[in-house]
Amino acid sequence: MSANIRVGVLGARGRMGAEVVKAVTNASDLDLVAQLDLGDSLDQLVTSGAQVVVDFTTPDSVMKNLEFLIQNDIHAVVGTTGFDSARIDSLSKELSKHPKVGVLIAPNFAIGAVLMMEFAEKAARYFESAEIVEMHHPAKVDAPSGTAARTAELMTQARKDSKKGAMPDATKQSLEGARGSKVGDIPIHSIRAQGLVAHQEVLLGGVGETLTIRHDSLDRAGFMPGVLLGVRSVINHPGLTHGLDKFM
Amino acid sequence: MSANIRVGVLGARGRMGAEVVKAVTNASDLDLVAQLDLGDSLDQLVTSGAQVVVDFTTPDSVMKNLEFLIQNDIHAVVGTTGFDSARIDSLSKELSKHPKVGVLIAPNFAIGAVLMMEFAEKAARYFESAEIVEMHHPAKVDAPSGTAARTAELMTQARKDSKKGAMPDATKQSLEGARGSKVGDIPIHSIRAQGLVAHQEVLLGGVGETLTIRHDSLDRAGFMPGVLLGVRSVINHPGLTHGLDKFM
Amino acid sequence: MSANIRVGVLGARGRMGAEVVKAVTNASDLDLVAQLDLGDSLDQLVTSGAQVVVDFTTPDSVMKNLEFLIQNDIHAVVGTTGFDSARIDSLSKELSKHPKVGVLIAPNFAIGAVLMMEFAEKAARYFESAEIVEMHHPAKVDAPSGTAARTAELMTQARKDSKKGAMPDATKQSLEGARGSKVGDIPIHSIRAQGLVAHQEVLLGGVGETLTIRHDSLDRAGFMPGVLLGVRSVINHPGLTHGLDKFM
Amino acid sequence: MSANIRVGVLGARGRMGAEVVKAVTNASDLDLVAQLDLGDSLDQLVTSGAQVVVDFTTPDSVMKNLEFLIQNDIHAVVGTTGFDSARIDSLSKELSKHPKVGVLIAPNFAIGAVLMMEFAEKAARYFESAEIVEMHHPAKVDAPSGTAARTAELMTQARKDSKKGAMPDATKQSLEGARGSKVGDIPIHSIRAQGLVAHQEVLLGGVGETLTIRHDSLDRAGFMPGVLLGVRSVINHPGLTHGLDKFM
Repeated sequence: MSANIRVGVLGARGRMGAEVVKAVTNASDLDLVAQLDLGDSLDQLVTSGAQVVVDFTTPDSVMKNLEFLIQNDIHAVVGTTGFDSARIDSLSKELSKHPKVGVLIAPNFAIGAVLMMEFAEKAARYFESAEIVEMHHPAKVDAPSGTAARTAELMTQARKDSKKGAMPDATKQSLEGARGSKVGDIPIHSIRAQGLVAHQEVLLGGVGETLTIRHDSLDRAGFMPGVLLGVRSVINHPGLTHGLDKFM
Repeated sequence: MSANIRVGVLGARGRMGAEVVKAVTNASDLDLVAQLDLGDSLDQLVTSGAQVVVDFTTPDSVMKNLEFLIQNDIHAVVGTTGFDSARIDSLSKELSKHPKVGVLIAPNFAIGAVLMMEFAEKAARYFESAEIVEMHHPAKVDAPSGTAARTAELMTQARKDSKKGAMPDATKQSLEGARGSKVGDIPIHSIRAQGLVAHQEVLLGGVGETLTIRHDSLDRAGFMPGVLLGVRSVINHPGLTHGLDKFM
Repeated sequence: MSANIRVGVLGARGRMGAEVVKAVTNASDLDLVAQLDLGDSLDQLVTSGAQVVVDFTTPDSVMKNLEFLIQNDIHAVVGTTGFDSARIDSLSKELSKHPKVGVLIAPNFAIGAVLMMEFAEKAARYFESAEIVEMHHPAKVDAPSGTAARTAELMTQARKDSKKGAMPDATKQSLEGARGSKVGDIPIHSIRAQGLVAHQEVLLGGVGETLTIRHDSLDRAGFMPGVLLGVRSVINHPGLTHGLDKFM
Repeated sequence: MSANIRVGVLGARGRMGAEVVKAVTNASDLDLVAQLDLGDSLDQLVTSGAQVVVDFTTPDSVMKNLEFLIQNDIHAVVGTTGFDSARIDSLSKELSKHPKVGVLIAPNFAIGAVLMMEFAEKAARYFESAEIVEMHHPAKVDAPSGTAARTAELMTQARKDSKKGAMPDATKQSLEGARGSKVGDIPIHSIRAQGLVAHQEVLLGGVGETLTIRHDSLDRAGFMPGVLLGVRSVINHPGLTHGLDKFM
């Protein structure tokens, strides 16, 4: 019989972290061995023997956390956002010195969001036009969302690979901001409204038709199957993995 | 038996104008007496005895057209966009000198669009958050659309009348354009994609719920019942009327 | 200074009832004086001096509860569903003997749902075609929902008042159930899926255009402003009131 | 230099057929050699030397047409609907006697619809609940649409392959038709309304999240790239091919 995986949680008192604590506790093949939050010493992760640590903290602290984990040969599943290419490079460099450690960075752990990104990437090869609308609760601090930005990057690459030219757009007179923000080739529109949770719509258009792929995330519980899949998979995937789809 | 109304069309070779020519021709209570386009002399409108003229031309020529019509005591139904408050003031002044003439300016002649605006205005009184997404074919030159801007103005006034404060929005880090353009209090997001025709979605949000009102306009034929309603009504409504809803 | 309204809750341990208990407790102008559930004696409502009772129980018990309340001159706000015309008639008869008592029956207390019904009713006068899609979590026992049925009744009456004929529909070969269930003139389609909460979409169609009105209810907290509005208003509205819109 | 492909059209005066005639005429690598409609003799297809025939006729005549084509070693691209397993078996049998002939049967030639079906099939493996809403103009005679039925078949097989159990559904009291028609495991809801063209929405739900894939087809022109892809590909794909995705 294989032993349970020993899991630690960073940001355990946050809304996502608390959900992870609950999900790990309820999983029969995982043992929760540490739950830390702001002000707690990272050393507990070592003394508790954590094999995998789930990080839902903040852009400010996540890099320091990951350096510590990698140096102590602890795998990581990261839901914190804010990873630009400088941060990715820095992580890859650190990981190259600890070749057995695996780190999963995922902009979104909902299975539906992962599929949305995969489908959007594939469809981007077939349509002239593509835009993203992402809709979130008004307490969100960043716009566009990490998921929307990541989707746009994937779609931009797909358009390049399939030799798409510029999108048709005759706009001449425009109020500032009307046509959204661009990540790569893709305009992203960010809506913030009371009553929303986390939603994204990818619109693709060709002559006479449109294809729309929409993900609605209404409850943090919907992220847990993806987080647990990450925990179970990262142990066998050394190096840096970007996106949960690699484990599906 | 009442005589038919004599109707002229300005911009008769444009896509909307051609549709109006067809609709007027098919209406048993209307007579098409003049169809003009770029380069034709406006004098034909007088010699043909037009009582009402429908204008689907361009922002550049519409003011000159309307001055001519008002001075010749001809009523007007105007679908051309680009009316700001300076233009509205100038028209009102001109009309005050010709108290029998009626001019209808409508940002949208589709019955469904008129209802969308009316409902959005009413609902704006009850919800904390409100945003607009408008989606059009990529040949459209202006963003946001005239309909979206008008909807936002009506909703802004409704929010003021019901003493709404600022919308909740915690956005701190944002790419330029992500949160759209603002008309009054309302962020508007403009999508331009192949395969679209003319669509608008108004999203309203309060604690635990959202209300969405969406209009899809797939065919210019859908505007004609509204244009004809305008033609038949403007004769009995001297002065400036803004919005087809006043005649519904 | 006016005294607080004394409020009792029936079905207080149910999901909606528990939310009402919380909302009444938090409202500074209301006093929670009784919270009853299955097996508790209704007499407590009298001894506690409740002026208004909110009933979120079951179709099986609601009629008995209302008879008791009316006979004891206690006003009622009712969220329980299952009211057909026989039940409405029976209530009206009972109320005629107690002319000071007010009873509010509402198929939905979300402000957005009330507006959706009002808008659907108005728009039904202008469009040839109309259908309803309602979407709920898979634990719901009835289909279609009470809100969808009520919306369909209101729209059917509006179509009759505006002399609409039968909707266009050329369907000849059809699998059983494909075209939904009809309430009055309106086909209703009921979707039940994991991940949904409570959603309804009303689609109206005319030549070249469609208008869609959608309500999404993601959290029971969204019903509480409507329930409290009902509690505060029913005291001054003797007799039977159907629909929260009468108090808006 | 390779010679052009010689193409015939059956149902050439129908709305889709006329569009095909136009598209073939405009394609520089295709020659339109025959355009037939009701009452014309199929022999013209042989005498004109057609290599591929596109059939947009009716369920009543398509089987007879295909027998003729196969027996004369002419490839076929079929947009006509109404293929059940009996018809498929009969075709396969006929084709086994003419091993060089290729027949493509596609429920939908829009690239976006083909992708929608592919994505729906893949996503069906990951979600507990799945339903389809298809929306068409009111002149459509069958419900559900061929595209919806085909999507449901693909999804049903995907659910079986991934060992999905029955969908959660607690419905006890239900009006007839409320829960749609079932094709395989999947409930399909068919909406028919003025102002619609051809639209389909596939909804998938799991704990806390939903994924929606929607295709909107606004113009028959949107089908032509798919029809021409079929014409060019079927020549090199002997036997029966079901679904345009096999050629993408």
